[in-house]
Amino acid sequence: MFDFAGRRARLAEKLESSKIDLIFCPPSGDLEYLTGFPRRLATFGNYEHTHQWVTGAFIPIGSEPVFLVPEGYSAFNPPEGVAGEIIRVGYLDDSVDVFARTLRRFGPPKKIGVSARTWASTVLHMRMADVEVVDCDDLINQLRRIKEPAELVSMERAALIAEQVMAEVTPKVNQGTTLLELASEVDYQLRRLGSRTSSFDTGVWSMGPHDQSDATKRISSAPLRQGTGVCFDFGAVVDGYCSDFGRTIFLGDPDPEYVKCYDVVIAAQAAGIAAATPGNTAADVDEATRGVITAAGYGPWFRHRTGHGIGLDLHERPFISVEDKNVLEVGMTFTIEPSIFWPQHVGIRVEDVFVCEGSGCRSLNSYPRSLVAG
Amino acid sequence: MFDFAGRRARLAEKLESSKIDLIFCPPSGDLEYLTGFPRRLATFGNYEHTHQWVTGAFIPIGSEPVFLVPEGYSAFNPPEGVAGEIIRVGYLDDSVDVFARTLRRFGPPKKIGVSARTWASTVLHMRMADVEVVDCDDLINQLRRIKEPAELVSMERAALIAEQVMAEVTPKVNQGTTLLELASEVDYQLRRLGSRTSSFDTGVWSMGPHDQSDATKRISSAPLRQGTGVCFDFGAVVDGYCSDFGRTIFLGDPDPEYVKCYDVVIAAQAAGIAAATPGNTAADVDEATRGVITAAGYGPWFRHRTGHGIGLDLHERPFISVEDKNVLEVGMTFTIEPSIFWPQHVGIRVEDVFVCEGSGCRSLNSYPRSLVAG
Repeated sequence: MFDFAGRRARLAEKLESSKIDLIFCPPSGDLEYLTGFPRRLATFGNYEHTHQWVTGAFIPIGSEPVFLVPEGYSAFNPPEGVAGEIIRVGYLDDSVDVFARTLRRFGPPKKIGVSARTWASTVLHMRMADVEVVDCDDLINQLRRIKEPAELVSMERAALIAEQVMAEVTPKVNQGTTLLELASEVDYQLRRLGSRTSSFDTGVWSMGPHDQSDATKRISSAPLRQGTGVCFDFGAVVDGYCSDFGRTIFLGDPDPEYVKCYDVVIAAQAAGIAAATPGNTAADVDEATRGVITAAGYGPWFRHRTGHGIGLDLHERPFISVEDKNVLEVGMTFTIEPSIFWPQHVGIRVEDVFVCEGSGCRSLNSYPRSLVAG
Repeated sequence: MFDFAGRRARLAEKLESSKIDLIFCPPSGDLEYLTGFPRRLATFGNYEHTHQWVTGAFIPIGSEPVFLVPEGYSAFNPPEGVAGEIIRVGYLDDSVDVFARTLRRFGPPKKIGVSARTWASTVLHMRMADVEVVDCDDLINQLRRIKEPAELVSMERAALIAEQVMAEVTPKVNQGTTLLELASEVDYQLRRLGSRTSSFDTGVWSMGPHDQSDATKRISSAPLRQGTGVCFDFGAVVDGYCSDFGRTIFLGDPDPEYVKCYDVVIAAQAAGIAAATPGNTAADVDEATRGVITAAGYGPWFRHRTGHGIGLDLHERPFISVEDKNVLEVGMTFTIEPSIFWPQHVGIRVEDVFVCEGSGCRSLNSYPRSLVAG
């Protein structure tokens, strides 16, 4: 489905000037991007087998990857359909030796680029082998940030599933239903409709004059009451690609301030969309979006960046944020997700995923953004 | 609730001989153990804010921790109730400089111990500051592996929630119900009953003569059919501590081979329990457990280690596995979870958490292990 060898060839071109001739990635979006090796689902408590620190792949320039996988891990997380050699490290093997010998297969000590979240344990074992280790996060991101057509197809499917879930869950937003019930329904529907898992911890929270809650509390067992805004924040995973979707439903008759704030959030997103053209920076999109909310007097309650790149990971650079001066390019995908999170007053967020195209940005979502209340 | 300063003092004693005088931990079980700084929930796609690589704490010997937290992260994941200084790294700050200056506060370059899963990005920034970096996973594990009474209280609560969930879900194991519906119900009930989240990805899968499925596929949307064993594998999180629980329910009338295998698995667990006494090794427990299954002729279908330490993480050393020669000590907590996973024939696992005590090991679970079928 994806041309992993082609991606590695493009990475090799970028590596030339940096004198890096070998890459190591643990299970991650980076590894999945370059080889198709799937990530396991995330766990709250560390999931670990003996020799877990070796898990990943050496990716040399010009030849196929070599994967290291502990026996205990591969037994229940079999690496499937990847090109290259797979070395299984047995329970009783000396993994330090296996790792060092594998590293030496690529020639005398040189410069190795590692994925940003490679474990310290792994990096320190490379250093024991006297190899210079550098962070190649920027180099891999330069490729990953521009999506291929096949990636956009997967991302559109992930976006669509989130919309289908929103439609399924909306009729269940009723007085007395708990936020936890709604969040659980979201997670269930995501998987029922074809998502591998939730792309991140689903959030469903309520904010309003009758709520003590804030957006920092993403889940609670509180039953819904009339007169509150219920914010949804969740996403699907298709072929490893994440979606991230947000809508707010008002339970009851919204007062004029809520309606005004809703219009402000929609206008802010529209301003961000208009600014998200090739040649503008990520920070420009943040400024345009934030400007609308600030002008309306709600600036202090837009408490986060406007958005973030998205793809195999939920949050990828560029970040649609004041500090990110990256210039938008055709093929970049990112969220625009303004909010007004004003505790005990108003809670509203609307979020969609966009792809930057030649003439501007196009939403991967088509779900209505109009105020839903009742 | 927990004496974090006391834990840091005990760690300091261990560090003396290794000449490490500073520790760095990113958000992790290690950081939570030493400071109480809570982990965020896990996400499938990376969750990341600008400067995320600095997130964590420097923990010096003899004085309080210094936390580094990016503004974008702390806005929605506020560090609560931790002792020590919290430095918020603003969106526009130079995080490389903030990190280096913070590191220099602890004196001239020296030896810093890092938690095993500290990001490569973070380690490489330490090396830019010319500090010697070493893996202090073993040192921290030496403390964490022996649970204090307060930790056991939390772990017992986490074990109890898993049992309550099992009781809630059991009546829903019926023909036509999908495995996904059961898994979703498990996840919902876990949180309804007080778990912060699922301690790992909940698995509910069916195996038997009529199933093409295997234990490698933890979730599917297949509806249950008569004549299949439904394996449950899930856990709760209380005060950061994980439980891990397993039972199997047979839907229909089990044939003699299933009944025999069920008895073998129970006998294997009993043998493991008997071997789990102070002075025996983790490998001894594996050998005792595995011996029963092997003697019965099902050895090839016990496809994993017998268990693993558990606490703030799901999988902690010691591992109850052939390669782990650690001697069991009073206060260690671990699972004993034999299985027969024989695709298209039999799928059975029974799992409980145990604590090693002076006279042997005690189960934190009291849920019946007898065969449930119908």
